[in-house]
Amino acid sequence: MQDFQGFVDIRDRFQSQVSTVSSELLRHGRSESYHPSLPPQAIVYPQSTQDVADLVALAKQHKIPLVGRGAGTSLEGQTAAPFGGISVDFSQMNKIIDIDLANMCVTVQPGVTREELNRELRHTGTFFPVDPGANASLGGMAATRASGTTTVGYGTMRDNVMGLEAIMATGERITTGSKAKKSSAGYDLTALLVGSEGTLGLITELTLRLHPQPDAILAGIVGFSAFSNAVTAVMDTIQSGLSMARLEFLDASSVRAFNAYAGESMPEMPHLLFEIHGSENGVHETMQMFSQICQDLGGTEFRASSKTEDRNALWKLRHNGYYAILASRPGARAVVTDVCVPISELAEVVQKTQADIEQSPLSAPILGHVGDGNFHAILLIDPDSEQELEAAQHLSDQMVERALAVGGTCTGEHGIGFGKTKFMEQEHGPAWQIMGSLKRALDPHNILNPGKLVPEPVFNAPTGSVPPVLPDQ
Amino acid sequence: MQDFQGFVDIRDRFQSQVSTVSSELLRHGRSESYHPSLPPQAIVYPQSTQDVADLVALAKQHKIPLVGRGAGTSLEGQTAAPFGGISVDFSQMNKIIDIDLANMCVTVQPGVTREELNRELRHTGTFFPVDPGANASLGGMAATRASGTTTVGYGTMRDNVMGLEAIMATGERITTGSKAKKSSAGYDLTALLVGSEGTLGLITELTLRLHPQPDAILAGIVGFSAFSNAVTAVMDTIQSGLSMARLEFLDASSVRAFNAYAGESMPEMPHLLFEIHGSENGVHETMQMFSQICQDLGGTEFRASSKTEDRNALWKLRHNGYYAILASRPGARAVVTDVCVPISELAEVVQKTQADIEQSPLSAPILGHVGDGNFHAILLIDPDSEQELEAAQHLSDQMVERALAVGGTCTGEHGIGFGKTKFMEQEHGPAWQIMGSLKRALDPHNILNPGKLVPEPVFNAPTGSVPPVLPDQ
Repeated sequence: MQDFQGFVDIRDRFQSQVSTVSSELLRHGRSESYHPSLPPQAIVYPQSTQDVADLVALAKQHKIPLVGRGAGTSLEGQTAAPFGGISVDFSQMNKIIDIDLANMCVTVQPGVTREELNRELRHTGTFFPVDPGANASLGGMAATRASGTTTVGYGTMRDNVMGLEAIMATGERITTGSKAKKSSAGYDLTALLVGSEGTLGLITELTLRLHPQPDAILAGIVGFSAFSNAVTAVMDTIQSGLSMARLEFLDASSVRAFNAYAGESMPEMPHLLFEIHGSENGVHETMQMFSQICQDLGGTEFRASSKTEDRNALWKLRHNGYYAILASRPGARAVVTDVCVPISELAEVVQKTQADIEQSPLSAPILGHVGDGNFHAILLIDPDSEQELEAAQHLSDQMVERALAVGGTCTGEHGIGFGKTKFMEQEHGPAWQIMGSLKRALDPHNILNPGKLVPEPVFNAPTGSVPPVLPDQ
Repeated sequence: MQDFQGFVDIRDRFQSQVSTVSSELLRHGRSESYHPSLPPQAIVYPQSTQDVADLVALAKQHKIPLVGRGAGTSLEGQTAAPFGGISVDFSQMNKIIDIDLANMCVTVQPGVTREELNRELRHTGTFFPVDPGANASLGGMAATRASGTTTVGYGTMRDNVMGLEAIMATGERITTGSKAKKSSAGYDLTALLVGSEGTLGLITELTLRLHPQPDAILAGIVGFSAFSNAVTAVMDTIQSGLSMARLEFLDASSVRAFNAYAGESMPEMPHLLFEIHGSENGVHETMQMFSQICQDLGGTEFRASSKTEDRNALWKLRHNGYYAILASRPGARAVVTDVCVPISELAEVVQKTQADIEQSPLSAPILGHVGDGNFHAILLIDPDSEQELEAAQHLSDQMVERALAVGGTCTGEHGIGFGKTKFMEQEHGPAWQIMGSLKRALDPHNILNPGKLVPEPVFNAPTGSVPPVLPDQ
């Protein structure tokens, strides 16, 4: 059992920044996923880097687990507290510290959300492109190496985090990277922390790459009679060097759900949604070439527009996809899969997945980031049906097995948490043990997000959850 | 003293793949830099991943240092063997294993050079863009996180290595990354190994991102009366979102050296060299906008061409810059500096550097990758003059201090080796000790490239160089 005195010390230090309200604990033990809540014993709301440093020092002294949390939009249990301890909620560290247009970067606290940042940037001529759909916090997006609809054009968080400040498990404050555009000065600690899901350090500040707002934007949609043709169009587009800012697909059953949810009347066939950024001439030239590629593969007539309201409507449709699909089965919850495969394998993998879904008792529309080879099946289940959850998990496992068999990955953008640790050995082989060695080296007492991502037990993990020791505030 | 039996075992296993010829040892103890040779005791030429695995197993058993070596074009002593041991020369692991156009990637052995790869790709419609100037090996480029003239458009090795196979110090073969375009499955071991300079693992295979050959290429040159105007032009260009494939600068004294070397007659003023990739219309549109930006800042008339021979001549000029500058002082050797700063600081840093150089007894033309904020001063010294070497080292140290003071890095692309370890603490603070922890975790006996990059002594290093123990072959 964890040190009672530790929690007392933490309450003494953090006072009103601590909460042990049961409903809040329950909410902090889960995020936007089907995984059950594993609540922490207390929540601390740091307001500064010094707060985080003090918290880590106390946690280290008393061997109390610390589980970082941004906006709580993760999907694989990253915010759960299987060994109890403290949920470190970064929502009050939400300042934009510095917008540096000369160097095209911005420094923010981890609790700033991507929508807040882009609102603030609106009048600067720049924007931050990474867009996972949810209004996630930038710290959380870095911690899970988030990506989303714009990755085909602008990369993932891996490509857009220039530097970090973090408090490591040892309690030390480190800074990584810089505003220089590149460096070969030693190990890439920025890249090591991005995607580490709070298991190596707690991110307290991020410097992010900004991009110029394009002069012209053109968005549109095109249907295909067969999904394989849509994928071939995407491969031809990428090989031609056409610069696409977004390139998404919906299968026929997603389109059906969209139509029902938003009162649309798109033909129920596979569709590509796209967006092109550039100069006025550039986007039209790119669109013509892309249109030609699609026509050659039997694509329907293009619906494309450069009007802001049309574009917003299109991407709102896409971003509401999850809710549209949820609404197609009232009362259902969703298990969202997230494999990513080499694009050469995508058509076959999606087709086999659709066949598997047809064999199953579930309905499961598919959509995703076709330009990256990343797709999501939204497996709709009755939350009270053990049998449906099992069927969903079986389907999800099948998809991962198939992705790994063709050289893909078990997660394109949702991360590992505890939901996908079971695939890590198969995906990485001995490299997973290397990850365990890194974890042991940097967090010898396993206080940072124990039970996630790395092999367990890598060393003496905390011995299990204990009930909250502090009175409700 | 290292284990005699170890060397005997290695010779027995590797037979004719071992060399202890003195001249070869001397050559392997240095690379293209001013650092003195610190020769290994033997050289092994692996021909397969299994060879490397066997070599690491023997080195681990007998605690013999292993120093990886590609084409030997590094500049900070990366290939030197300060503790003796084996130089692992990858020049015979030079097969292109698979060109995968559907996934726009290529898998190669580490000894393949970038020019060999691009020759092989010429008829595929793709190319590999990273271009450090020297015909470096791709394994070496990954190990040092190389970049060069195309980084402003295509990124560094960090951005272009999709996955690796490596033999770790434990002897285990791991693979990292995949042909899927992205993944959030665990720690980014690819990024950790890229730039680790052979201190964590020996790279035995690389999967690299290919890019489509552009339909049109336009290259050119423009002069400015003041360097600060050239930098402002670059900043405006990047903030406008103009896509430049190359963006280099030469100071007036570099131009003088170029004129003398190549019989050119460029005006002796700061110049920008640029290249634009895209569609026919796209490159002309970009050039017009770039031209306008330069004109507004007093740039001279553009000399630009889309002819292959003109482009080749331009970049040959740039790539021969080092030799042109060397030739400007017959018999001289060069200390090449490599700081990289936030681009907002570049103009002032270069001006102060030029003033420092004028105060010194040395001549030192400056050129570099202005789009990245990275520049090189080529400090010309008489190799027999202790005093000039000292003056060069003093200037070089001054530049690093100034770069760090404005939030830059001590090396944009040349890496640390042993030449720049002295700046690591100042640049990274406690993060350098984190790098040491990672090294200890993955290479507990310090057999991989000891004496480089990480804090020393991090643990029991081998106890010093011993004379070669094997007879010449």
